[in-house]
Amino acid sequence: MSDHIVKSYDEDLASLKTMLAKMGGLAEDQLAKALDALTKRDSRLADQIIQNDEKIDALELTIEEKAILTIAKRQPVAHDLRQIMVAIRIASDLERIGDLAKNVAKRTHAIPDALPRKLVAGLNRMGQMSLAQLKQVLDAYGARDAVAAMEVWQHDEDVDALYNSIFRELLTYMMEDPRMISVCTHLLFATKNLERIGDHATNIAENIYYLVHGKTIKDGRPKKDTTSTMIFDAAGKA
Amino acid sequence: MSDHIVKSYDEDLASLKTMLAKMGGLAEDQLAKALDALTKRDSRLADQIIQNDEKIDALELTIEEKAILTIAKRQPVAHDLRQIMVAIRIASDLERIGDLAKNVAKRTHAIPDALPRKLVAGLNRMGQMSLAQLKQVLDAYGARDAVAAMEVWQHDEDVDALYNSIFRELLTYMMEDPRMISVCTHLLFATKNLERIGDHATNIAENIYYLVHGKTIKDGRPKKDTTSTMIFDAAGKA
Repeated sequence: MSDHIVKSYDEDLASLKTMLAKMGGLAEDQLAKALDALTKRDSRLADQIIQNDEKIDALELTIEEKAILTIAKRQPVAHDLRQIMVAIRIASDLERIGDLAKNVAKRTHAIPDALPRKLVAGLNRMGQMSLAQLKQVLDAYGARDAVAAMEVWQHDEDVDALYNSIFRELLTYMMEDPRMISVCTHLLFATKNLERIGDHATNIAENIYYLVHGKTIKDGRPKKDTTSTMIFDAAGKA
Repeated sequence: MSDHIVKSYDEDLASLKTMLAKMGGLAEDQLAKALDALTKRDSRLADQIIQNDEKIDALELTIEEKAILTIAKRQPVAHDLRQIMVAIRIASDLERIGDLAKNVAKRTHAIPDALPRKLVAGLNRMGQMSLAQLKQVLDAYGARDAVAAMEVWQHDEDVDALYNSIFRELLTYMMEDPRMISVCTHLLFATKNLERIGDHATNIAENIYYLVHGKTIKDGRPKKDTTSTMIFDAAGKA
């Protein structure tokens, strides 16, 4: 870390870091609550989450503005410029995560009755995995820990594998019992949202790598969500 | 428009504008081809689209870097700073649009047989509407035309209304004939992707407004995608 002659410059960077930590905390909180709302069908909690999303959106704008003004005022180079660019990108990923958590919460209103236990189990597993990825990547960012970030990056394969298996499961339920089609459709979208949250955690991990090492990860990220090309027959076999 | 004493500054801004126009053209092209690939089940075209997405991703990075370096070098204020911030944001929306078009294309591989004509019709209507929104908003950006941008913004309601009706239709088909569940699930996701492309066109419209007027649109955007809270009974009635 280089020391800066201009004190207020460090203050600019520190304030960006603080705002991002706050934004990350909010996103994590929204995701945890969205899982609760949906699995317990708590409509009031869902409404709270939908309302709170504005706070995340507002923080993204504030961070972006602060970042751009800092660049214009201080003309940073190398590591400092990278720090600010990465802050802008992570804020954008967190805004998307907030949006996706909000979408998960919204599905609460669409599901009138208690969810069958087997459906809740899959959703919970998926949600807890995405939440764990988000937590770890935010900690890695706070600690500028590229190794921990790479663990998140690697682990995205598991999130995708779980998503694939839940996708299959939901389609099978729909085929077995057409009365489940409406509920399962909403769960398909909610699960897809959780899988996308995993992707954004992976984006953040890539940016931490770039921040620490000054270069991007060469080889493509693991991508194992294969559901978009999955063909099912009427018996639900892929 | 203010003239700049430093010639190369204008060149920086012009080059950003050119890169964005190129990126917008690519995104439009990818979307048009994705609709073609999916409705005609052209797997080779789908593969091309999937590959081409890299070009859009690369352009986003180049635009972001160019923008940040221009801010650091030139320390712009007011309208010029706004121009560069908006370029970064629009590049991010175009990258997402490219991603969503790629996802639409991917579904081509999942649908083995010819689509029933009634399903193609809905998908086509939805796709043409999103494509028209994207075209108009890109033209509006090129011309810095806030009025045309606001038309796109208003029109997003119609995109959402159409999405709602197709969502209903697809669920009804699934309930009537469980053999359609797999195909309709893929079409549900593809249609949702097209609806999201409409949202990104709306984001771009908001940024054009901000660029031209120096302030954001006060009242919230029209939001009429209500499918996330739609409850269906077994007969497919909402």
